[in-house]
Amino acid sequence: MSDLDTLFERIARGEIPSYRVYEDEHIFAFLDINPLSRGHTLVIPRVRYERLEELPEEVGAALGRALPRIAAAVIRATGAPAYNVLQNNGRGAGQAIPHVHFHIIPRYADGSGLPHHWPARTLDKSEAPQLAQRIAGFLA
Amino acid sequence: MSDLDTLFERIARGEIPSYRVYEDEHIFAFLDINPLSRGHTLVIPRVRYERLEELPEEVGAALGRALPRIAAAVIRATGAPAYNVLQNNGRGAGQAIPHVHFHIIPRYADGSGLPHHWPARTLDKSEAPQLAQRIAGFLA
Repeated sequence: MSDLDTLFERIARGEIPSYRVYEDEHIFAFLDINPLSRGHTLVIPRVRYERLEELPEEVGAALGRALPRIAAAVIRATGAPAYNVLQNNGRGAGQAIPHVHFHIIPRYADGSGLPHHWPARTLDKSEAPQLAQRIAGFLA
Repeated sequence: MSDLDTLFERIARGEIPSYRVYEDEHIFAFLDINPLSRGHTLVIPRVRYERLEELPEEVGAALGRALPRIAAAVIRATGAPAYNVLQNNGRGAGQAIPHVHFHIIPRYADGSGLPHHWPARTLDKSEAPQLAQRIAGFLA
């Protein structure tokens, strides 16, 4: 365990100071110290799970209830016309702290916010039915 | 209302075919027809809300429960080592369909997935306490 592993748990417990915006039984939210834009907020479970797929149902539900409310408050407080919600899993996906965190990133008319590139392809329909079934199979 | 407004509701009702991977009372998930990478999946509420901050608590909780399970299944089915979860609100943030949708975007060793740029700044500490309090005030 490195200091980064436990950083967000210590922030949620108040052992490390943060600019808190919300907390409840399961969830803690605070301003990102290295924001992409004004009002960039992190929403985390109080208990550390490294990746989203590890979240217990109860914690997932608490996150799902909190995110819309916190997003609404960030937007009202900043007046940003748009925003992105981003959550990264694994180093290859840009995850820096191994504790699930949702970024709420306001987007402003000056372009500040999450940069956008969207190199979409066309779905490979020769394998799509099998791929969808395979994913569905793991959910059955 | 344009066809794009109701596209996802019609997909969730089965009126427009899709490669479905999951559904429950509130949630529907299917393969993105223009994926950023193999296994790129969209997770939506069956009923249309344009932006995340409009979601009722019950639908938010259902989304929060479903996302970790669907992400786990996408990862098991594709073997992707990492993934991003992204949700865009407003045209300025890249939202193309005015119906809340979470992207689950696998990230592969070949670099396919959501492109990453992270032009982080340093939090302006002269206004951070007031900004955090202002956001918290809208949550009280």
